[in-house]
Amino acid sequence: MTQNKNHYVIIMAGGIGSRFWPVSKKSFPKQFIDILGTGESLIKQTFNRFTHLVPEENIFIVTNKDYAELVQEHIPQIKTSRIILEPSAKNTAPCIALANLHIKSINPEATILVAPSDHLILSEIKFIQTAKVAISFAESNPSLLTLGIKPTRPDTGYGYIQFNKTELQDGIYKVKTFTEKPTLDIAISFLESKEFLWNAGIFVWSLKSISNSIEQHLPEIHQLFAELDVNAPNYHVELEKSYAQCPSISIDYGIMEKDDFVCVLPSEFGWSDLGTWKSLWDVSDKDPYQNALIGKNTHAFDSKNSLVFNDTDKLVVISGVDNLVVVESQNVLLVINNEKEQEVKTVVGAIKDQYKGKYD
Amino acid sequence: MTQNKNHYVIIMAGGIGSRFWPVSKKSFPKQFIDILGTGESLIKQTFNRFTHLVPEENIFIVTNKDYAELVQEHIPQIKTSRIILEPSAKNTAPCIALANLHIKSINPEATILVAPSDHLILSEIKFIQTAKVAISFAESNPSLLTLGIKPTRPDTGYGYIQFNKTELQDGIYKVKTFTEKPTLDIAISFLESKEFLWNAGIFVWSLKSISNSIEQHLPEIHQLFAELDVNAPNYHVELEKSYAQCPSISIDYGIMEKDDFVCVLPSEFGWSDLGTWKSLWDVSDKDPYQNALIGKNTHAFDSKNSLVFNDTDKLVVISGVDNLVVVESQNVLLVINNEKEQEVKTVVGAIKDQYKGKYD
Repeated sequence: MTQNKNHYVIIMAGGIGSRFWPVSKKSFPKQFIDILGTGESLIKQTFNRFTHLVPEENIFIVTNKDYAELVQEHIPQIKTSRIILEPSAKNTAPCIALANLHIKSINPEATILVAPSDHLILSEIKFIQTAKVAISFAESNPSLLTLGIKPTRPDTGYGYIQFNKTELQDGIYKVKTFTEKPTLDIAISFLESKEFLWNAGIFVWSLKSISNSIEQHLPEIHQLFAELDVNAPNYHVELEKSYAQCPSISIDYGIMEKDDFVCVLPSEFGWSDLGTWKSLWDVSDKDPYQNALIGKNTHAFDSKNSLVFNDTDKLVVISGVDNLVVVESQNVLLVINNEKEQEVKTVVGAIKDQYKGKYD
Repeated sequence: MTQNKNHYVIIMAGGIGSRFWPVSKKSFPKQFIDILGTGESLIKQTFNRFTHLVPEENIFIVTNKDYAELVQEHIPQIKTSRIILEPSAKNTAPCIALANLHIKSINPEATILVAPSDHLILSEIKFIQTAKVAISFAESNPSLLTLGIKPTRPDTGYGYIQFNKTELQDGIYKVKTFTEKPTLDIAISFLESKEFLWNAGIFVWSLKSISNSIEQHLPEIHQLFAELDVNAPNYHVELEKSYAQCPSISIDYGIMEKDDFVCVLPSEFGWSDLGTWKSLWDVSDKDPYQNALIGKNTHAFDSKNSLVFNDTDKLVVISGVDNLVVVESQNVLLVINNEKEQEVKTVVGAIKDQYKGKYD
């Protein structure tokens, strides 16, 4: 199957997955981990998935400069010109603006799909079909399109997208609002209304459309990057300067919530952001008592609804417990309530303060 | 203070504390562990305690031959003649019969206190006072005396001693029955009746009385040991033979439950058998949320009623949990419900079967 040479993918791989601590950490973020125990890291899965959508040389990975070697190790076939290194973490808007700059230098007619590197997608075929519909729409419409996941439960850990139920074309709708993580009551009402989708952070647009929107809504970022030439000899020095001045802002907050012509394609392809230990438990194979045991030498006796993630050679035994997450990593043991998985961020913050970053 | 030269102590140190797995194990049993984090192993605490009761050279430690070096390491001042090595584990009756043989060869007029090596006693002064009353009684009465702990809660992990409420002398009563571990309902009724005490496995008797009782109730064991001479050149060979033929039986079941003249001294000296992780939690210092954190680098967030025992250098974090026991040892992580601590034995059995003793 030949791929369209105007179609590009930006894989964003600069995050550190702090709610997946202690396995995911600053020095070895979640996207580089074989979190599901399948033998492949999430970033490798993500890259391989997109080779079915666009020409391999049209896949760019944007990551922090600290992770350059990790990316090459996990995806040895990628050309170094396709690894875009951020001098520092500035959230998703600058990351996308930077990648746009690189793509523009090659192909100003590009249509681009932007996706995180550390999510789970179970139905690869459905995903590719959906992505093709989205790219086709974005090629012929000056719109910012996002893939919205049809929710299967009132999850309070996700952002939601409300859409206008009048179909535009090809199953695509105009977005009414983006909302932050809701309370459980609100999440339940979202689900019942059938007007809300999970925000998966997967975007599709033409290079021209997103560039225009950045110029309009984030003029400061537009200006900083407009001055850069990726082929100039002093590019890296200038990039450092631009990034140092660049505000840290998400594409959702900076663009999607503010633009007039934002659309959504309601989708189903077995998606999880794998944002928390609970979300890993949700998608993992479980024993008859709903225990997910990941890693060697893990045993559950008289236990239920629990996750054991063993990243060591140690024998790990749980007995008589319910709703527990046990994460045994090389230098940290974390035991948390499976229902309170959002609290990991608080824990990480407190540990960071006390140990001055030793366990980051 | 001069000690009476006729007074002896037998410390039984052959057990493996399997309910304290994975920290206590066959290769390094509980009595050799600084389980409370005080800087002293339980056997060292036990030995030191008895130096306030009898002459130091009158303290014998009976242990498995495999633990000879551990005993010498923990109690370097003990003479090797005071360490009695069992060829194999045969429960408490043979252990006591063997120690009697050694004491008889030195002093047939001995009065002996027998105690486990791995229990906790918080009120040392009260314990010594109580032990002196018991020894004095046993010197002048042909009785088998046991120290019974006044129960403070309906514990279902202990055996109980029922006594006849007519005092014999010095706060000592005749025993009516010994009972096995009760159900919670029965334990509550025991507590209310005020007729029941915890069986602490601490016995006091004259060498003559216990020897007579063994001859009467355990004639097979009596016979096997009667033929041994601890000073004979072939003693160790003969001991091996005797032990190989010796039945495995407890002093409680073999003697105490069958003898006619068994007495009990109701006692209070801050005792715990430290038989389970729950019992360690019971006696440990706790934070305001009733968490006991033992070991380096242990942290509890939003948690209560839990025990963390960290025997490694790892960072251990619990968050959002209740009633949990987390034991991080060098090669095993155990996470159990604090209310189901008796289940550890089942777990250890299953792990032993599966891993063929690797984690014993």
